[in-house]
Amino acid sequence: MARKPIIFQKNIKICATAAVVGKMEGEGPLKEYFDVTSQDSKFGMETWEKAEAEMVRESSETVLKKSSLGYDDIDLTFSGDLTNQCAASAFGLKGKRIPHIGLYGACSTFALSLGMGALAIESGLADCVLCEASSHFCSAERQYRFPLEYGCQRPPSAQNTVTGSGSVILSEIGKSEIGLKEFFPGIIRDPGICDANNMGAAMAASCADTLIRYFDSTSQSPSQFDLILTGDLGFEGHSILLELCEQQGLKIEKNSDDCGKMIYDTEKQDVNSGGSGCGCSAVVVCSYIMDKFRKGQLSDILLVGTGALLNSTTVLQKESIPGVSHLVRIKREA
Amino acid sequence: MARKPIIFQKNIKICATAAVVGKMEGEGPLKEYFDVTSQDSKFGMETWEKAEAEMVRESSETVLKKSSLGYDDIDLTFSGDLTNQCAASAFGLKGKRIPHIGLYGACSTFALSLGMGALAIESGLADCVLCEASSHFCSAERQYRFPLEYGCQRPPSAQNTVTGSGSVILSEIGKSEIGLKEFFPGIIRDPGICDANNMGAAMAASCADTLIRYFDSTSQSPSQFDLILTGDLGFEGHSILLELCEQQGLKIEKNSDDCGKMIYDTEKQDVNSGGSGCGCSAVVVCSYIMDKFRKGQLSDILLVGTGALLNSTTVLQKESIPGVSHLVRIKREA
Repeated sequence: MARKPIIFQKNIKICATAAVVGKMEGEGPLKEYFDVTSQDSKFGMETWEKAEAEMVRESSETVLKKSSLGYDDIDLTFSGDLTNQCAASAFGLKGKRIPHIGLYGACSTFALSLGMGALAIESGLADCVLCEASSHFCSAERQYRFPLEYGCQRPPSAQNTVTGSGSVILSEIGKSEIGLKEFFPGIIRDPGICDANNMGAAMAASCADTLIRYFDSTSQSPSQFDLILTGDLGFEGHSILLELCEQQGLKIEKNSDDCGKMIYDTEKQDVNSGGSGCGCSAVVVCSYIMDKFRKGQLSDILLVGTGALLNSTTVLQKESIPGVSHLVRIKREA
Repeated sequence: MARKPIIFQKNIKICATAAVVGKMEGEGPLKEYFDVTSQDSKFGMETWEKAEAEMVRESSETVLKKSSLGYDDIDLTFSGDLTNQCAASAFGLKGKRIPHIGLYGACSTFALSLGMGALAIESGLADCVLCEASSHFCSAERQYRFPLEYGCQRPPSAQNTVTGSGSVILSEIGKSEIGLKEFFPGIIRDPGICDANNMGAAMAASCADTLIRYFDSTSQSPSQFDLILTGDLGFEGHSILLELCEQQGLKIEKNSDDCGKMIYDTEKQDVNSGGSGCGCSAVVVCSYIMDKFRKGQLSDILLVGTGALLNSTTVLQKESIPGVSHLVRIKREA
């Protein structure tokens, strides 16, 4: 089994999903698919950080409501975000009395939480798991970059951190036909990129590595999937991924797309290279992608969460930005 | 199985451990048990943050050497630390080409990494797992509190962040008689403590919660364990834990101890309420505790990692400090 994807023996289902987003995401092309769009980017709170925790609480409540479950029915939560020490996840769930495991995988966190949630069910630790990831544009900007009031201009390769929280209920029980079938953890790769405004390039190498290792270690071929969905490389990073895969003889250009390319209307919205942040792939998958599964327009996809491993100190200390990309396979029962 | 400890069906062994520490830890009562003690708190690097990553690399190399394994033999790593975005773990392992999953559980991270590592083996995702946690006094001080040069005085309830990295190899294969038997994830509890210099008090409630739920959901009693080891409540937090357990009718005072109380000589070393940081329980367990197991002086213990969930922003925004405590059972074969 070593270094191969785990193919889950249990029938682990995606029973419900919820996506809560900010105003800008709610004005993009996926607006009709989100469960909650807040016109107030502070979500009724005093600070951006408290807003992000509130958003996590709201997507948790929403997914429970959609699945007719209470917090008591959840055995375990896996969640993570971009705030220092994953505070948004912890503060969003405190007081709910659910066992909680914090994950850090930068923008790969959503795919990682799905993989770990399924692992907890497969091993017998839990029957019903809540998997989550979030990010908030304003808390991320002031933590990683500059105060918003400074009005810093950003280069075309920069991505826009999505304000959003996505929640998923995984369980063996339930009526859903959509299953979490495989999980394949990524290796940290460092292509030597030092520009924190070009994280797509920093993550593309690890994403290509995960895909190449996945297809090398399984009998699958890219063409058998309806979609190979990365999240979130953006326009710049996704084009680099296609090049890197092409160089290695892996053809994915026909059926690959990226959550960071899908969430905004780049003609009308000023987002440079697209969306990013743990919340980006979380809300795209929890809304639009799940809708396509339910309508039968998708039946077998690979989701590759792509994370850039940096903090504001590593950037100031002129470290390069390694990436890590975790893969899960989502499949609809025939 | 819901909300009960998982009792691993596979024979998951602690095959090797390594502990790398700084100068001050190397002058404490456990000095003879550590694998590497660095006299240079920068571990040959330019900054405290690079030093912590170097320490992670060194404990990884040491545990591999002790178990006659190479990085290629490791299927998966679980690790975490206190630096923002868990950078020390990521930078310590980058370039090693091992699949990597980042965890965040503050000082509970070491116990969490053992639990998650065992889960990966139990589920079949991995055969051989590297579990790690680290912290560095200097990187933690300047990130959470004040520049070291400021020479800030600290109250008696404050704990001293341990400079140390602990690494463990878990596998089904190998000669070790020491096994990882159970894992029980913790619930986030918020007793309303707002003083970041009294984290022991902030964590004690979640630790009591985990222990009470553990004994409620199993047929075990505290007296059957050689040791109920917490990490890291320190002197203040551990005395609060004993009170909280006593109030609930759980008697653990005879066989409980805390890694934060064990690592320093509090008579001679100026550490206030004892040690803390992800590295504290990691290096105490990977050195002294494992030695006692190997000598037959310990044969069945509960390790409860206790984490305080805060960051510098939550403290400035006057949020309280929730805690989370994850439990693992370590047992020697008869």
